Order: sequence, then structure tokens, then C-alpha cells
Amino acid sequence: LLAQPTYNTIAVVGVGLIGGSIGRAVLERGIAQRVIGVGRREESLRRAEELGLITEGTTNLAAGTAPAELVVVCTPVKMIAGQVREALRQMAPGSLITDAGSTKAELVDQIESAHGALEGAAGPMFVGSHPLAGSHESGPEAASGELFVDRCVVVTPTSKTDVQAVDRIQAFWEALGAYVRRLTPEQHDAVLAATSHLPHLVASALAAITPAEWLDFTGSGWRDTTRIAAGNVELWMQIVAANRSSVVSALDKMAETIDSMRTAVAQRDDTALQQLLDRGKNIRDSVAN
Amino acid sequence: LLAQPTYNTIAVVGVGLIGGSIGRAVLERGIAQRVIGVGRREESLRRAEELGLITEGTTNLAAGTAPAELVVVCTPVKMIAGQVREALRQMAPGSLITDAGSTKAELVDQIESAHGALEGAAGPMFVGSHPLAGSHESGPEAASGELFVDRCVVVTPTSKTDVQAVDRIQAFWEALGAYVRRLTPEQHDAVLAATSHLPHLVASALAAITPAEWLDFTGSGWRDTTRIAAGNVELWMQIVAANRSSVVSALDKMAETIDSMRTAVAQRDDTALQQLLDRGKNIRDSVAN
Repeated sequence: LLAQPTYNTIAVVGVGLIGGSIGRAVLERGIAQRVIGVGRREESLRRAEELGLITEGTTNLAAGTAPAELVVVCTPVKMIAGQVREALRQMAPGSLITDAGSTKAELVDQIESAHGALEGAAGPMFVGSHPLAGSHESGPEAASGELFVDRCVVVTPTSKTDVQAVDRIQAFWEALGAYVRRLTPEQHDAVLAATSHLPHLVASALAAITPAEWLDFTGSGWRDTTRIAAGNVELWMQIVAANRSSVVSALDKMAETIDSMRTAVAQRDDTALQQLLDRGKNIRDSVAN
Repeated sequence: LLAQPTYNTIAVVGVGLIGGSIGRAVLERGIAQRVIGVGRREESLRRAEELGLITEGTTNLAAGTAPAELVVVCTPVKMIAGQVREALRQMAPGSLITDAGSTKAELVDQIESAHGALEGAAGPMFVGSHPLAGSHESGPEAASGELFVDRCVVVTPTSKTDVQAVDRIQAFWEALGAYVRRLTPEQHDAVLAATSHLPHLVASALAAITPAEWLDFTGSGWRDTTRIAAGNVELWMQIVAANRSSVVSALDKMAETIDSMRTAVAQRDDTALQQLLDRGKNIRDSVAN
């Protein structure tokens, strides 16, 4: 076990559920004394400060990230690459920047291709991250210092990533209570298409085809299965747009399985249906409720 | 509002989550003083009595149901019709029997075709019911007197059903805190295929296609969406078997929607994808979390 990492100043760009929870956990756990929140609206930043998620706020990305030894960018997927590149311009040598984006391959590539000039130099260093700690809730009011406890954070180094920087980013997430898995950005996107993006689309499809006049006849099964369909549509559009090929493959696999079920039900092939239901139950039983 | 119905003796056949919860609610609310539990195993019945779900137990269906003015059959779907028919043979004139089966058309038809001899006579009367109060938990240990509060119970009269019997069964479920909707058995099965049976199959499919080695990378979205896949496979096989044509139609609708999503994602048709996600979100937002 590494000693708990400590920093003088951490900056969090985007102070919503994820960014706010990082700020609060950092302060509660004494990982840094100073947490600068970077946001779009003064009012939200004041609210985040009142809630104890950050120690100060600014709407100026360059000013907020320059003093930080560690920056975590927690904005919607399509904004991340640009903000990381902007921050890298004034961050100090040896400082670190990571993100919390739900897709990785396109984003990491956009950052690394632009950051090439700093390769090998003792500049600031980027490592991609994705904490699997979403919720159907959102916004700073839902932030919690315990959000990352026992949650998985995927860290996505490439051949260009500094090895020590990866270790330091891993230690940071572990200090928040998470466990870390390392995948390439491409592996990450293929895995998350199946474990996160597909479930979202399936939940949306199920909800979308339920006639409104039948909602009286829904129980806890329908409610559980469709819960994430209530998520932010704009954010999910961005996630899908950044991971099209893996999402299409996942949808194809789902369509194939639905078709197998349909055939089994229509042809009274109880053996085939039971095999699918047994496999689903075994997989689900191996994960906490 | 009708006055709360009261009975001397109610019998519950099958003392699991649903039957046990009915027994407890009946006793807690003073709807009857005596609740006879009919089960397969003496030991389970003793346990149910200790838990306060029934006042006495028997493994003899005829002996347990004969003294009851109201019988509720809460066993797996494929056992219900036979047990209702057996109970009807010795139940008293004017007494009522209902069930908690998840499918209705086949089951109600099996009961009514056999019960024809009693039609019009002042015999015991059957009314089909389906409380939408399942849970991923099961068994008497999970029983709760509040299970039916604010839950929907579908009551499924036919042209053969005594009108007063329907009112009395509705009043019984309302006395447990539920709200009642009346549908024909065929309407019930079409609606529940979409709101219950399809979500179960979809949750199973999603879980079944998730590689075990990727389970570390699942978050609350996957867990919510697949939760009901952990349900009892044998019970769900029976439900699907009793509702094949509606389940096939629901699977077809799902396959069509997944295909529309696939096309939208692959062809970068953001407008089409957003329409589906918006519709899913609107429908989901109109139901409690």
C-alpha cells in the first residue's frame, strides 16, 4: 500500500455530482487543504463552497487550474479534451491532470495528439480516468464524500503515458476509497459499451415502448429496469457519439439475444429459454444487489 | 368508500412473500381473526406462524380452505387452476376465492370451464387477481404487512363473474392498502407482457451477455437494470409459458426499438436517437423512482 498522497492544491473542473463528491472526499480525507472549483456560474460555485465541496471557486479555467498540482476534469464528455488541453498550457512541470469521462478512446487520442510537444519533457502529465460512480441523481446537492468507496475507477494509460503518473493517479483514486483497474482506452470503451452504455439504451427502449396509459400496471421490476432512462439525455447522446462502434456491437449482441429468446418462447423451446434465464441469474447473483 | 370488509376466517394457499404478506396484513388490519396457511411443509408453516403471518397451518388443501369465507391462492402460476378447482369443491355457498397469479387468461379459462356446473348457483365464487407487488426477495422471511400499500392489484372479471363477488374482492385488496384496476384476463396479459414479463426477459438478456470477467466494471446502472434477472427461473418459465403470444409481441416491439437505436447510432442520426431517449425519459419521469 502506498502512503496516502497529499497535495497542497487540487482543482476540480465541473462541480456537479462527481466533481463535488471528489472535492468533499479530498477535504474530508485530508488529501488536500485547498480545493479550487472551476465552474460556469458564480452562484453554483458559491453553493458548492457552502456545501463544503470546494474551498474556493472561479469561472476562469486557466486561473483555477494553474496553481493545482492535480486537476480532475468532471465536465460532460464532449468538453473534456478541450479543457484538458487548455489547462495543460499553464500547469506546472510535474503536475497531473485526469478526468472523469465515460468514454476514453476518442478523448485520450484528442489530448495526446495535441499534447505531443510535451512528450518526454518534464511538463504536466495527463492520465485518463473513469470513476464508475454515476447515479440517477445529479448536481452538487447529491454530492457525497463516500461516493467512490468500493467503486471501480478505470484508469486508461497508453504507450505515451508516464508510468509514475499512472501510479500517482491510481493512488489518488484509492485514497478516495475506490479500487482501480487499468485498461487501454479502447478496451475501456468496449467493456463500458456492454456494462454501462447498452444498459442505458435498453432501459430507454423499455420505457419508451411502454404506453403511458399502462404505467399504473408497472411494479418494482419495471421501475428498476428502466430507472436510468431518467438520466440526462444530452450527456448520454455525447457518450454514445464518442463510442459508436462499440455501442453498435453491444446493440447487435442484445438484438441477437432478444431474438434467441423470441424463438425459444414462440417455439416452446423451454430448454433454450431456461439456459438464457439461468445464465442471466448466475451472472446477476455474482454481483451485489 | 366501502366499510372495511371483515371475515371470520381467511385461508392463504402458499405462504411465501405474497401469501405471507397477505396473512400479516389481514391480521394487523383486523380484517380477520383467523388466517389458515396452506403449505407443503409443516416446518415452513410453523415458521410462518412464529413470524405472525398466519394463525394456524395445514398441509391439507381441502381441510384448510373449507372453513374459509375467503381463500387467496398464492402458489406458482401452473399450480393455481388445479388448487382453485380443488378448493371450490368444498367451499361454502357465498364464499370467495381469488389468486395472485402473474398471468390470467389461460388460468381463468381453466377455472371457469371446470366451474361451469356452479354457474348461477349460490356456490363459492372465483375472481382472478394479480397484485403487482413482487420483489427480488422471496419467501416468508421477506413478508411485510405493508407490501400492498399503494401497489396496484389487477382484478380480472369475465362475463361469467358475479358482479358482487368482484366488488368484494376489490374491497379486500383495498383494505390491504392497494389500488385496484379491472381488466379482462386477456387485457391483463397483454399489458403485463409489456410492464412485467418483457422487463424480466430484457434484464436476463442484459445480464446473460455480460462476460463474467467484466463484472468489475459494472455500476449502479447495470445493477438496477439487471436486478430482476436474479428472480426464480422456474417461476418465470411458468409465467412465460402461460402468456406466450403476448410475450412474443412484446419481444418483437423491443427488437424493433433496439434496431431503430442501432440504425440511429450507426448512421449518426442524432435526431432519431434523441427522440427515443427523450421519450424514454419522459415516460420514466412520470413514474416514482
